Amino acid sequence: MIYLPDSLIDQLLLDDIQYGDLTTRSLGLHHQPATMTFTSRQGGCISGLEIASRMLNKLGIEHQCDYRDGEIVEAESCLIIASGTVETLHQGWKAVQNVLEWCCGVSHYTHQMVAILKQYQPDAQLACTRKTIPGTKTLALTAIIAGGAIIHRAGSAESILLFTNHRQCLAAPDDWYSHINTLRAAAPEKQIIVEADNYEQATLAIEAGADIVQLDKFSPSLIRQLQQNLLKQKRSCRLSAAGGINLQTINEYAQTGIALFITSAPYYAPPRDIKVKISTS
Amino acid sequence: MIYLPDSLIDQLLLDDIQYGDLTTRSLGLHHQPATMTFTSRQGGCISGLEIASRMLNKLGIEHQCDYRDGEIVEAESCLIIASGTVETLHQGWKAVQNVLEWCCGVSHYTHQMVAILKQYQPDAQLACTRKTIPGTKTLALTAIIAGGAIIHRAGSAESILLFTNHRQCLAAPDDWYSHINTLRAAAPEKQIIVEADNYEQATLAIEAGADIVQLDKFSPSLIRQLQQNLLKQKRSCRLSAAGGINLQTINEYAQTGIALFITSAPYYAPPRDIKVKISTS
Amino acid sequence: MIYLPDSLIDQLLLDDIQYGDLTTRSLGLHHQPATMTFTSRQGGCISGLEIASRMLNKLGIEHQCDYRDGEIVEAESCLIIASGTVETLHQGWKAVQNVLEWCCGVSHYTHQMVAILKQYQPDAQLACTRKTIPGTKTLALTAIIAGGAIIHRAGSAESILLFTNHRQCLAAPDDWYSHINTLRAAAPEKQIIVEADNYEQATLAIEAGADIVQLDKFSPSLIRQLQQNLLKQKRSCRLSAAGGINLQTINEYAQTGIALFITSAPYYAPPRDIKVKISTS
Amino acid sequence: MIYLPDSLIDQLLLDDIQYGDLTTRSLGLHHQPATMTFTSRQGGCISGLEIASRMLNKLGIEHQCDYRDGEIVEAESCLIIASGTVETLHQGWKAVQNVLEWCCGVSHYTHQMVAILKQYQPDAQLACTRKTIPGTKTLALTAIIAGGAIIHRAGSAESILLFTNHRQCLAAPDDWYSHINTLRAAAPEKQIIVEADNYEQATLAIEAGADIVQLDKFSPSLIRQLQQNLLKQKRSCRLSAAGGINLQTINEYAQTGIALFITSAPYYAPPRDIKVKISTS
Amino acid sequence: MIYLPDSLIDQLLLDDIQYGDLTTRSLGLHHQPATMTFTSRQGGCISGLEIASRMLNKLGIEHQCDYRDGEIVEAESCLIIASGTVETLHQGWKAVQNVLEWCCGVSHYTHQMVAILKQYQPDAQLACTRKTIPGTKTLALTAIIAGGAIIHRAGSAESILLFTNHRQCLAAPDDWYSHINTLRAAAPEKQIIVEADNYEQATLAIEAGADIVQLDKFSPSLIRQLQQNLLKQKRSCRLSAAGGINLQTINEYAQTGIALFITSAPYYAPPRDIKVKISTS
Amino acid sequence: MIYLPDSLIDQLLLDDIQYGDLTTRSLGLHHQPATMTFTSRQGGCISGLEIASRMLNKLGIEHQCDYRDGEIVEAESCLIIASGTVETLHQGWKAVQNVLEWCCGVSHYTHQMVAILKQYQPDAQLACTRKTIPGTKTLALTAIIAGGAIIHRAGSAESILLFTNHRQCLAAPDDWYSHINTLRAAAPEKQIIVEADNYEQATLAIEAGADIVQLDKFSPSLIRQLQQNLLKQKRSCRLSAAGGINLQTINEYAQTGIALFITSAPYYAPPRDIKVKISTS
Repeated sequence: MIYLPDSLIDQLLLDDIQYGDLTTRSLGLHHQPATMTFTSRQGGCISGLEIASRMLNKLGIEHQCDYRDGEIVEAESCLIIASGTVETLHQGWKAVQNVLEWCCGVSHYTHQMVAILKQYQPDAQLACTRKTIPGTKTLALTAIIAGGAIIHRAGSAESILLFTNHRQCLAAPDDWYSHINTLRAAAPEKQIIVEADNYEQATLAIEAGADIVQLDKFSPSLIRQLQQNLLKQKRSCRLSAAGGINLQTINEYAQTGIALFITSAPYYAPPRDIKVKISTS
Repeated sequence: MIYLPDSLIDQLLLDDIQYGDLTTRSLGLHHQPATMTFTSRQGGCISGLEIASRMLNKLGIEHQCDYRDGEIVEAESCLIIASGTVETLHQGWKAVQNVLEWCCGVSHYTHQMVAILKQYQPDAQLACTRKTIPGTKTLALTAIIAGGAIIHRAGSAESILLFTNHRQCLAAPDDWYSHINTLRAAAPEKQIIVEADNYEQATLAIEAGADIVQLDKFSPSLIRQLQQNLLKQKRSCRLSAAGGINLQTINEYAQTGIALFITSAPYYAPPRDIKVKISTS
Repeated sequence: MIYLPDSLIDQLLLDDIQYGDLTTRSLGLHHQPATMTFTSRQGGCISGLEIASRMLNKLGIEHQCDYRDGEIVEAESCLIIASGTVETLHQGWKAVQNVLEWCCGVSHYTHQMVAILKQYQPDAQLACTRKTIPGTKTLALTAIIAGGAIIHRAGSAESILLFTNHRQCLAAPDDWYSHINTLRAAAPEKQIIVEADNYEQATLAIEAGADIVQLDKFSPSLIRQLQQNLLKQKRSCRLSAAGGINLQTINEYAQTGIALFITSAPYYAPPRDIKVKISTS
Repeated sequence: MIYLPDSLIDQLLLDDIQYGDLTTRSLGLHHQPATMTFTSRQGGCISGLEIASRMLNKLGIEHQCDYRDGEIVEAESCLIIASGTVETLHQGWKAVQNVLEWCCGVSHYTHQMVAILKQYQPDAQLACTRKTIPGTKTLALTAIIAGGAIIHRAGSAESILLFTNHRQCLAAPDDWYSHINTLRAAAPEKQIIVEADNYEQATLAIEAGADIVQLDKFSPSLIRQLQQNLLKQKRSCRLSAAGGINLQTINEYAQTGIALFITSAPYYAPPRDIKVKISTS
Repeated sequence: MIYLPDSLIDQLLLDDIQYGDLTTRSLGLHHQPATMTFTSRQGGCISGLEIASRMLNKLGIEHQCDYRDGEIVEAESCLIIASGTVETLHQGWKAVQNVLEWCCGVSHYTHQMVAILKQYQPDAQLACTRKTIPGTKTLALTAIIAGGAIIHRAGSAESILLFTNHRQCLAAPDDWYSHINTLRAAAPEKQIIVEADNYEQATLAIEAGADIVQLDKFSPSLIRQLQQNLLKQKRSCRLSAAGGINLQTINEYAQTGIALFITSAPYYAPPRDIKVKISTS
Repeated sequence: MIYLPDSLIDQLLLDDIQYGDLTTRSLGLHHQPATMTFTSRQGGCISGLEIASRMLNKLGIEHQCDYRDGEIVEAESCLIIASGTVETLHQGWKAVQNVLEWCCGVSHYTHQMVAILKQYQPDAQLACTRKTIPGTKTLALTAIIAGGAIIHRAGSAESILLFTNHRQCLAAPDDWYSHINTLRAAAPEKQIIVEADNYEQATLAIEAGADIVQLDKFSPSLIRQLQQNLLKQKRSCRLSAAGGINLQTINEYAQTGIALFITSAPYYAPPRDIKVKISTS
């Protein structure tokens, strides 16, 4: 569970229903009791339920939800059944549907990638980057965790990741050994992770003693080549792969034997279809 | 220009750089002057520049930008050139890059759809729905406007759109004539727009005198059939099409002669590549 | 129901009771149980009850309210009866009273105008402008809806309204025909509403095909003159009247036959008297 | 100067222009340079200029203002002259106009009351209550200070004011002497102010040694009667009058010789007319 | 009770647990039921309980608390017993503990100072300044009130306090008589309090008729000297002492007979130890 | 540099000066030009300057500051010289002074601890905990970084720290080996840090292969004993010490040879004296 402040829940509602639903009001629909159901047409790994529940609570809508974030449901599963006045249900409809559709899209895509990865390596991890779609951070992290992934970096303050852009600001950009030592002394509680943009950089980073070398846009074959070299030299440096890791490619990458994959792909997953039905009968 | 509050600009930054960039700090990089460039690798219809500029201002980073939201740029165009201390540039890097990549993705996709549509109908409009990805509303609307689309509904309070879910809460759900008249009297400054889920509903809505009938998930051929009927009956009701309208299908739909297409597809566009280079030299 | 975010409810409280009620505290009054009643001295069309209820909830005050926003109550009706500790009741007192007094003032004034208007034209509408008193928007819209009015424009983004200030920025300010066509193409889902500051402008706007011409500060007799001309020319353009429409003038304007009146007058209604009694007995 | 947080300035804008001005956008008006003037039609005591200036700054609109809050200007004085793009000017227009009209209304009304009061008693003060219209607190206090009034109580925590509702929660409601002593010991840095709802209460409060007795809804003649009694008994208690003090009654009340009047009337002053002209020429 | 907005409660949580507790999540601990206790190791005057309770509510954690802010508890008293899922309890743990430890530290220190002061003068007051640690204002005021102190000034707008920095901006800085009269006329509902930095200033302030002279950094012996002079001259001006008033010095100062002491010392009190135990058994 | 949102800067101001400075206003001091200086009486390691600067900017106060956060200044150094109107300077005075005094207190205390530690071990680090005083997080982290310390954990989501409270929720609380392996697999980019409350736990944690064992409240002699054991067993586990590490004890702890100390002590440092002088001459 990732805690969301009330202001975020309110924002999700107000982005859609500020000043109410004009159509409902114009039809003279107000306090009549009605029911509303949210049904997952396609099923799959769901998320956003807790957020949806808090949105409905804000509107004073009673509801029942028999699932939890991260569960896998069958097609046509009814995720939430709610009851309230016609006017509040219509206000909750699209805003909640939208959250569920997007979150389920992200969690299901994540789940699919993780499932493929774990076929080959049960202990490997899929880590999602900090490049969430602007404004979606808390929802996105909620959804990828539900899908079985972990957070790569929630932000730039929580871990060490040495980029080329960092090195280019240093007096001796290519003195990997020195930079890694500086980082290790300065951040003794962190692993020293460095990004390598090509084979040569990876080799230098490994020799300089990085804890993890994050290979950016390496092909599976280049990764294998690097691993063989590591074996030959009996070096214990761990590798991770980033750039181009997605549902289409994870199968091939997973077979390289690398145990950590970094991806932003789930954030761009298509939404899952959530059918909403409101009626007074 | 859509005005964004300072709190949103701050949120875009803090989602990524709360408590700073640990790697920069650990390397002892602080007040050295440096430059940073944001370059569009692929070019296309750009957006997010004004937001990016406000983010950089917040960090005290001076910068120059020779383009405006909505312009079409060539590949490898340098969108922004900035100068500041190493530590502030590294804090601005990913957060700004992320905004630009996502916004440009949305505006470019929108632009492509609009360009196809206008080939067939110069006065037709592409209108984007209120189903923005949760948390992205202001950025999304900024981007689709830059791409040449219009806002379908910014929220449920600004226009009339009669859904089946509304009708199911009324005493006589299928009395379209009565509902449309009720709506017209209650909202005299709004057009009465109704959603039709199938051919029969569309026919009823047209006969009942709706200003616009929004056809949900109608195939191009079904749309043509409906239009011929309209012609035969000499009815002046306008039609719009929603559901399944995207970059793959717009060409075919545009040729139906309908002049208004409703879509959420641009919100899910892949991000455009923005290359960022920071260096002290 | 217009949804209000928690931050607004909190602001309404904190504007008055930040750091508590010094007098209560200085008297040593804290956890003693007490009751508080809110009574409408004059009766009339009430509103703000839902907001009041949320404010009391925030303070942990239990309460009962047998009315809803929009109801007409008799003089001396007890709107809310609440029970809690002396210290929380004293904190809720003035802030809640103030909300009720102001909202009831607005809704009752609105109700009176609407009642007069509907005597002459049962289907006419009173629409309240976006010129709410700064800072009161959500409360004001809640109150005018309770009073039976509709929202003219919640903001500048939701509808088309062509002002002289717009035309003065165009190459040919007086080419009404062209501007209206431009607007119709650009905003196909909106009615094209234009403001006319005098008879000549109104005539031009009608001829140019506006959907609605909003007559600004026209006398009833000038309105009648315009309507006769419309009849003669068999034009179907609808008219609305704005400027100087208030409780004193609505009777006369209502008899012109125009079915849409635009007003800001209710926002400046005097507050209604709400008597508050707190006691421990 | 009362400091306003940026979030409030943003709220004043967004309440009106969230997602921009559709009419401007639909007319294709964007980056053309234009000018905008704000002119006080009626003149009088002005306020809200500093807030207006901050709103314009937020939109990137350059402007000049030769007046300060609290100045008295002649009719047809141009308060602000601004220049920017057509699209930003149209977004600033109504929101800024609305703030100026309301603030000037409050400050001018206050100024008129103060001017009358000072004719009779140059050192007397008009103090405005905490019953500001919900949501307007900071603007209201800015305006009444500009008009020459003082703040009675900004909230319930800053001063002692013993109401009947307080006394009714105490064991011996009518033991004024004891309550005033309790308050004096508990709040040694505050004056002990008590409200009297009738002549008898006022007499008891005076005898019990209150610093100030606030007479609620006393007629001028009743006030005079009380003052004569005070003189006879050679008591030094100060009096203030509240309830029914407004522009119509201040003249008569001012002649009673009381030097402190408490009022909420300025908050409900009608707005002053501010003419706004935008053009590209 | 001082009311705290929900945004503050959320901030207290998010400062610590944004994106959850990684350790709990990594251990696979989620929905197992568990219990958590908060125990005061040292006992003393407690506070922060109501805030703690609201934090736990936000996380959906049920809990019971048999004490109130301001009570004196024995060592090893269990302040709160809570039950919830392992993952929510671990999120509530440190954030709540931190609030309790800090608030109890402040209230207990305050209570100790007040207890000493009241030994000598039962009716004297300890007033805490507006120099709260930045960001802690509402918590700090909650805690010092729980400890038996009063608020000196919640801010600069609520009372008159003439500083040397004020006088240095006036034409005749040393004309105390004139300044005090100006203040009394301008703020008739406030006591005129002036700060004296030395004996000479105190004498001038007394002669000029201040209601209270706040002696800044006066030694007890200098205070006694001033009091004897006051007695000789039969002046009734009240004195307060500020600067250097803390738990170490209050005993000596209390014996001077001054009845009002101003201090910031409690804000810097060491935190009290709160033991937290979470287990599933 | 840690970025602070504008809302926080505004809050720091409004906590003190909401509705202005009554004394300045009552003295009739408004637009007269004046200067204000902030001088460090004691000198030392300073911080909070950037925050102070942003606060002054908000009030429209021009100022100059020749120092940066983290510098060591001599006693009586003038940190900031500002100029503005009397009324804005008086509003900036205490709020800014308070931020500077508190931040400088924290940074100077931190600096002193770091200086002692580095005498013995130039590469050792002082890491400050997440137990910041509630509400002070961003300021506190700004100050401890200025003083030369690092952030231990900014929150519970950014690193692994296995507490006894975690283990007590697991099926086999004492199976350290299993838990550490679980954590390592689940969080491959993090170091596995575990807390040991006593010697036995430390031994178990070391044997189980933790990356860092955080010794809670171990005496220096007990630490030495553990280190000798480690040496004997040729284990490479790193140790850190927490609990009771402060300015009084750091000297003794530093000599144990441990290179990482965890502390909350700087957060409770006494404020440093900042003298503020305002005058119009």
